[in-house]
Amino acid sequence: MSKKVLELLRKQSRDYISGQDMADQLGVSRIAVWKQIQALKKHGYEISALKKNGYILRSSPDLMLPAEIKAGLQNKMFCSKIYYFPTLDSTNNFAKKLAQTGAPEGTLVLAEMQTQGKGRLGRSWFSPAGGSICFSLVLRPPVLPSYAQRFTLMAGVAVAAAIKKVCSAAIRLKWPNDLVIAGKSTYLKVGGILTEMGAESDRVNYLVTGIGLNVNLDQNVFPADLRSRGTSLKAQDPHNLPVVRVKLLQQVLLELEQYYKRFLKGDWENIIHEYRSFDILTGKTVRIRQGEDIISGKVTEIDSEGRLVVKSNKQILRVIAGEVTFQK
Amino acid sequence: MSKKVLELLRKQSRDYISGQDMADQLGVSRIAVWKQIQALKKHGYEISALKKNGYILRSSPDLMLPAEIKAGLQNKMFCSKIYYFPTLDSTNNFAKKLAQTGAPEGTLVLAEMQTQGKGRLGRSWFSPAGGSICFSLVLRPPVLPSYAQRFTLMAGVAVAAAIKKVCSAAIRLKWPNDLVIAGKSTYLKVGGILTEMGAESDRVNYLVTGIGLNVNLDQNVFPADLRSRGTSLKAQDPHNLPVVRVKLLQQVLLELEQYYKRFLKGDWENIIHEYRSFDILTGKTVRIRQGEDIISGKVTEIDSEGRLVVKSNKQILRVIAGEVTFQK
Repeated sequence: MSKKVLELLRKQSRDYISGQDMADQLGVSRIAVWKQIQALKKHGYEISALKKNGYILRSSPDLMLPAEIKAGLQNKMFCSKIYYFPTLDSTNNFAKKLAQTGAPEGTLVLAEMQTQGKGRLGRSWFSPAGGSICFSLVLRPPVLPSYAQRFTLMAGVAVAAAIKKVCSAAIRLKWPNDLVIAGKSTYLKVGGILTEMGAESDRVNYLVTGIGLNVNLDQNVFPADLRSRGTSLKAQDPHNLPVVRVKLLQQVLLELEQYYKRFLKGDWENIIHEYRSFDILTGKTVRIRQGEDIISGKVTEIDSEGRLVVKSNKQILRVIAGEVTFQK
Repeated sequence: MSKKVLELLRKQSRDYISGQDMADQLGVSRIAVWKQIQALKKHGYEISALKKNGYILRSSPDLMLPAEIKAGLQNKMFCSKIYYFPTLDSTNNFAKKLAQTGAPEGTLVLAEMQTQGKGRLGRSWFSPAGGSICFSLVLRPPVLPSYAQRFTLMAGVAVAAAIKKVCSAAIRLKWPNDLVIAGKSTYLKVGGILTEMGAESDRVNYLVTGIGLNVNLDQNVFPADLRSRGTSLKAQDPHNLPVVRVKLLQQVLLELEQYYKRFLKGDWENIIHEYRSFDILTGKTVRIRQGEDIISGKVTEIDSEGRLVVKSNKQILRVIAGEVTFQK
């Protein structure tokens, strides 16, 4: 109901709209409209009221409420259904449970804050309230499990493209799935992608793609151990300007949908070409940890299958998985 | 407790053992021993009692009780923990839930009967009480998701090898994962393997391998639509002899463990070579359904990566996934 009241307020954005008008249009009482106005104010909407004229929407809060996301969203497939939480343990865990019980492709799980945000390889992901974008999408691509790796690279390109459009940050990709900004001798992480799947040996049942972005965090809110390695889009902005999270989220969802469609149509060659334009590793000397093993060498390229090509002791290695750090 | 009483009865298999003796050895009362004897009888154990001499075990039921499975089991890794159910919806579903909450490698889920047994591609699997072996194993191999396909082929070889040893059936493998016996113009299915996994894009979190075997089913118990395509090991035996299910299960678990160890050590080349010795498709004209598409052609081999090689209109196709039927 509050969503419908919000829609009416937005529609008549330059003038007051009376409580009676809204009540009539929605087929409810004026008291019911008033209650929804109070609920919207509680969520941070600034709404002015004038006795004879009614209500007008002055500003919207920077919350990623479903009604905000849907307003002006250009997507068709994604966001078929939105699950929104002020706080959640992990959007990926919740989305996996939904996927296992049949949630359709495009289901979106969104949290203002995660208490147990997950990164790759069982690591945790710092995602406090207000400053991050954390969401997970349920997808059901008709592909083999081995395609999940390509899918993750594709998602990285989509998110990087969205960030570049919305806030002109010099965003780069650190293979396979970190969103980073180049620093003096190293890089600072602004986001990551965690793809999980349920599959049979020769078909994917579902993919859950979790995306975590540091958007409006100030550098000093990072825990001490992350401060030298993490940053946010706001902290990297020359004027320290915050990003409107809903706007960025909408762009990320739009790019993800468009790249996903291209991916399913077999446009992999162009996608990996675009990936290379964001790649931060080529030319760098790196260490790659694969379980107990460590490879050292110089990255020569990301190959056509999305593998990291490393020259190590005159040998050419094509790396499929591993944890990459810059060699000091 | 009944497991310990059973162990004592087995230990003294040729003579009576008194209730007092057992009570002393187990540190419980004679009444407690008597209660466990009654429980064992309820499960189908034939136990004779003589007032002055005590108890003797005459015969064990053909139930796959954990105590039966563990008696004489040569495995080391698998069966670290057994979950046994007279009836369960699906051993794979139960094992997946266990795997998602941290169950260790080797956890076994076993059911005398499944009410919603699952086959590949969302199909159902007929598994009535008493005649089948249905179990699922939780595994955590340190491999990429793309290796799950090889894993399934490996499991097929292991199960076929176990069946061959225990009941000399002319068991064959129909790519990728059906256990069949060759018929006149076609084949009859005696079992199948369903591997499911939870994974990130570049590492497997868990595999759940479900194995369903028709062991002692009579041909007439199959539903009408399956009767011409399914059979059991007993129905195929020249003397119609039943198979002791626990014995077969133990052998299957042993072979699975041994092949799994070889698989992890990189012995794939020999494993796929053994797969070929069971392969029923090479030389046959087949139809392969892949979603909406259908390929027709002659199978020329299973290649070194486990793909089905098909000659179709002078083209050589290497098939990774699909549903194969003989061309009539």
